[in-house]
Formats: sequence, C-alpha cells, structure tokens
Amino acid sequence: MTTETKTLVVERTMSHPPEKIWRALTMTPMVAEWLMQNDFQPVVGHRFTFRAKPMPGWKGYTNCEVKEVVEPTRLVYSWGDGTESDAGLMTVVTWTLTPTANGTMVRMEQSGFRPVDEMGFKAMGGGWPGILERLEKAAGQA
Amino acid sequence: MTTETKTLVVERTMSHPPEKIWRALTMTPMVAEWLMQNDFQPVVGHRFTFRAKPMPGWKGYTNCEVKEVVEPTRLVYSWGDGTESDAGLMTVVTWTLTPTANGTMVRMEQSGFRPVDEMGFKAMGGGWPGILERLEKAAGQA
Repeated sequence: MTTETKTLVVERTMSHPPEKIWRALTMTPMVAEWLMQNDFQPVVGHRFTFRAKPMPGWKGYTNCEVKEVVEPTRLVYSWGDGTESDAGLMTVVTWTLTPTANGTMVRMEQSGFRPVDEMGFKAMGGGWPGILERLEKAAGQA
Repeated sequence: MTTETKTLVVERTMSHPPEKIWRALTMTPMVAEWLMQNDFQPVVGHRFTFRAKPMPGWKGYTNCEVKEVVEPTRLVYSWGDGTESDAGLMTVVTWTLTPTANGTMVRMEQSGFRPVDEMGFKAMGGGWPGILERLEKAAGQA
C-alpha cells in the first residue's frame, strides 16, 4: 500500500535561554498568549484541547494528548485526534529546544499530514512562523 | 539575531526496493521523467541545473550542487544557489531511502526556506507529493 505524509518544520533562533522558552511553552496562560486558549499540562498522557474562533474548515477546537515531556528541551503532543476536532487531523507536534551561544534554537515539527489534510497543511504552514514570533515575544516575559 | 527557516518533508512508502528507486533518483533520463530536464550526475561536487518551462516567480532553471552520495540510501544536493536561478532559493534537498518489509520508505526533505522564500515554500509544498508519485511510477520501470 502506498501511504504518504508531509511534515512541517519551522526553526527559529531566539535570544532567550531554553528555560524561559520552556515556561512559555508549558504554562497555560502563556500558551494562551502566543497560541490558543487551552487546558494544557506538561504531564505525559494528559489530554487537553486548544480552542479559538471557528474558521471555515476548522470547528474551533483541537484535541491533543501529551506524549513526551523532557524539561527544558523536548515537548511532544498529538495535534488532532482524527475526529471532527481539527478537520480530522492526526498530527504530532514536537518542540525541540537546543541551547546556543546567545540563546536557543527552537524547532517545531508537525508531522503526519496525509493527502486528505492538504488544507490543514497549507493553513499550518502559513501559520507557524507568526506563532513562533509570538512565542519569542511571550518568552521574553517568562 | 533572529533567523527563521522552514523545512518541507514528504514521506511516501513505495513497493519497490531501494535499488530501483536509487536508479530513478540518479539516472539523468529517469530524473527527467519524474522531475525535470537535468545534467545531474551522482558525484559529490558536481554542479548541475534543473530546467523546465518558466512560470511566474521562477525563471525556468534551478542551479544545484551534489553534496552527498551514499548508494542506495542517501542523496543530498543544494537546490538553488541564491541567484535568480530559483527566485533566490538557497535550499537543500535530502533523499533518504529506508528498506521496509515490502519496499522502501522514501523521505524527501527540503530545508532552508527563509521568510522571503514563502512563495517557493508554498509552491514546493504543493508540488512534491505529485513529484513523489511520479518517482514511484518511474522506479517501477527502473
């Protein structure tokens, strides 16, 4: 059987240390600031939901589950659970923080887009750069 | 300084062994069949050009250089050299072939899209899945 998936990777160097970025990635009110309203907790197995205003093709919520938590370098959660929550997306988001001389290389990988998810792939591909820009600003206040 | 890049990854399982896919990836007339006219050679340091009909935003050629050749599992070449050849793209394409029980997992990674390359990112993101489909067909005759 032929199967095909696409993955998005966005990398951004930030001038903050990993610990600050980790706080912005994992504290509920901060995540709300740069990404969406949520009931995230940095606990493996925790199920949570991102919520925002519905748009054409998206009902306004995305069901997720925490898969890995390695403070302050690696955070993995599923994004979409195959239900209507996110137009059927069943992707995985992996955050990797690598310290550099002056800050942190932040890598966001969203994998598992199937051919049927092309609209979501395009939307997220256009969306992540702005999201990482907001994350950097939020981390500055973490 | 803040820098940001995006990477596209397309993975497709194919029912052919790596050796067949490798031939389709590296033999000039076959590459022309699934990708573009070219003077590719699987030799590190070899500079070559992909050519096709110009389109808005693309002059019809892309200057490349072979970076790594590990038959039959890994092939790396630069894609665009920062000149007008490919709207200034300076990306790197990495092909990875991993044998599976029934064939091969083919992974194409194109990295190094800067914010200014967003149009190219969108175009390539839409283009690669069809290209890999054609690669699979070409490999069937390799």
